[in-house]
Amino acid sequence: MHSFKELSEKFNKAFEAEHFPTAPASLYEPGNYFLSIGGKRIRPVMCLLGNELFSDIHPDAYQLANAVELFHNFTLVHDDMMDEASLRRGKTTVHVKYDESTALLVGDVMLIRAYEYIQHIQPQYLPKILQLFNRTAKEVCEGQQLDMDFSKMENVSMDNYIHMITLKTSVLLAASLEMGAILGGASVNNCQHLYEFGKKIGIAFQVQDDYLDAFGDAAIFGKEPGGDIKQNKKTFLLIHALEVANATQKKELNDLLSSNAADKVEKVLAIFKSCGVDAWAEASKAKYMQEAFEHLEAIAVVSDRKKPLIELANYLMNRNQ
Amino acid sequence: MHSFKELSEKFNKAFEAEHFPTAPASLYEPGNYFLSIGGKRIRPVMCLLGNELFSDIHPDAYQLANAVELFHNFTLVHDDMMDEASLRRGKTTVHVKYDESTALLVGDVMLIRAYEYIQHIQPQYLPKILQLFNRTAKEVCEGQQLDMDFSKMENVSMDNYIHMITLKTSVLLAASLEMGAILGGASVNNCQHLYEFGKKIGIAFQVQDDYLDAFGDAAIFGKEPGGDIKQNKKTFLLIHALEVANATQKKELNDLLSSNAADKVEKVLAIFKSCGVDAWAEASKAKYMQEAFEHLEAIAVVSDRKKPLIELANYLMNRNQ
Repeated sequence: MHSFKELSEKFNKAFEAEHFPTAPASLYEPGNYFLSIGGKRIRPVMCLLGNELFSDIHPDAYQLANAVELFHNFTLVHDDMMDEASLRRGKTTVHVKYDESTALLVGDVMLIRAYEYIQHIQPQYLPKILQLFNRTAKEVCEGQQLDMDFSKMENVSMDNYIHMITLKTSVLLAASLEMGAILGGASVNNCQHLYEFGKKIGIAFQVQDDYLDAFGDAAIFGKEPGGDIKQNKKTFLLIHALEVANATQKKELNDLLSSNAADKVEKVLAIFKSCGVDAWAEASKAKYMQEAFEHLEAIAVVSDRKKPLIELANYLMNRNQ
Repeated sequence: MHSFKELSEKFNKAFEAEHFPTAPASLYEPGNYFLSIGGKRIRPVMCLLGNELFSDIHPDAYQLANAVELFHNFTLVHDDMMDEASLRRGKTTVHVKYDESTALLVGDVMLIRAYEYIQHIQPQYLPKILQLFNRTAKEVCEGQQLDMDFSKMENVSMDNYIHMITLKTSVLLAASLEMGAILGGASVNNCQHLYEFGKKIGIAFQVQDDYLDAFGDAAIFGKEPGGDIKQNKKTFLLIHALEVANATQKKELNDLLSSNAADKVEKVLAIFKSCGVDAWAEASKAKYMQEAFEHLEAIAVVSDRKKPLIELANYLMNRNQ
């Protein structure tokens, strides 16, 4: 059995291999560029963790892990286009460094490459994994669409926001664990608890991501803070602030949302702080973590095997990048 | 056994079913819109034809056919964005009717939906079909990238153009037939000849498509003629014209390529005609058809079973839309 850190190192080393052919370079060089700018590679490591929770690592777990990482990068390349983001992990995004058409095709071909890794999975596991992968992929697109829709709406309820980020973020974390577990021969019941563990962790992670986008350190976070605020993005923080703000704060917030003032970010952050949004985010994160750990507890394997998943959770929740 | 026309009708009827869930409507309504504007549905019917060449229609052949049609529509939605096309089949394109971000996600989710249809294929055929589907999907993206690259290059050789359109257009026709054949239990040798038949038909089809884009009737063709000329797209016609034009014609053509004159299309067409490009296109199409029929001939099944494929070829080659 391996620790979370060991599995991360193993995956990162394995992932250094070439993922694309050489020609046409105009398509694959931008693809390689984006893969090379790194990232935490959390999702593929979750495939390995889900797998090793139930068995020795199955050789196909790396194919699965590659598929998940390629899929995740596909979503990032296309999301960056939709968000008109110029930086990702501190580096120029594909549509800015190259052009929109190239970024569109690079994303497309990354998604297809993900399915090429899936195709190598043993026939006995292939249908079940392909089905979960497909369902998850569709949900992630639905989540992104809802995210865009919400950005144009005046009011978004916390329930709708949680539904959206569950689709956009959590289901891929959950499915990464479960697909690994399927390869490990896990029972349906164990798979379900592991999926729920991943889903709750995912929501906690998003609470933190929204927090970091507002209050994070640009040098560590790899992108300018306040991006969500500038785009009037509905986030855990903004939705909660609008729920708890007094009339004056609420009016000020709404006025800021319809402005492009130079000090917009600064002023919104000040309201967030005066509404206690930062403390609330901590508590909310803790609640989801608690629920996640209850599901982890319910998985019928000896507790020692669960340690790497606890390490993962701690890593994610204490991260400052 | 069914005729090409019967299979077309059967598929079109079956394809009327809903392909997407209802929510989020902001994602799936545009998807349904694009699917509803029709198209010839040639590729999915080719899955059925490839299948029935070797056996009674396998129930999974319709899953496969749906996958291929969804995949094709994914490429159209994204290609329209890259080409900045406002019309497709005489109707407003998705990125114009909705917006760029929606079109991006609609394309993505169509590609994933294609894989959802693939996932239902029986495990004994699934790995082989998934592999061919993936390879083909990647090649289609490569073809589209090369097409964009070529539009920025001054000179493109006929060989490079044929390579590009083979990837962009032919391999999907070829793979549609072969995937159907795999489901029909065809031998490797028969699969290869059928694939080559599809590939050659695809090139002939593209010669004609380039011809129609220049000389087609807007009312029938569903898009303005001369679109390729306006975009300085390298086509069979332009590349051949540049090969055979005399010095005066060549200079005039090159001058036109760097202009946006109102009568650009008209003048380029006049040069095409004076170079005999239209007659050459006919001859070229006939050559590829001849090669296609040689491969069809080589497939080891009784000739009666091949009749629907001959009907398909005739339909494609005499079409004026």
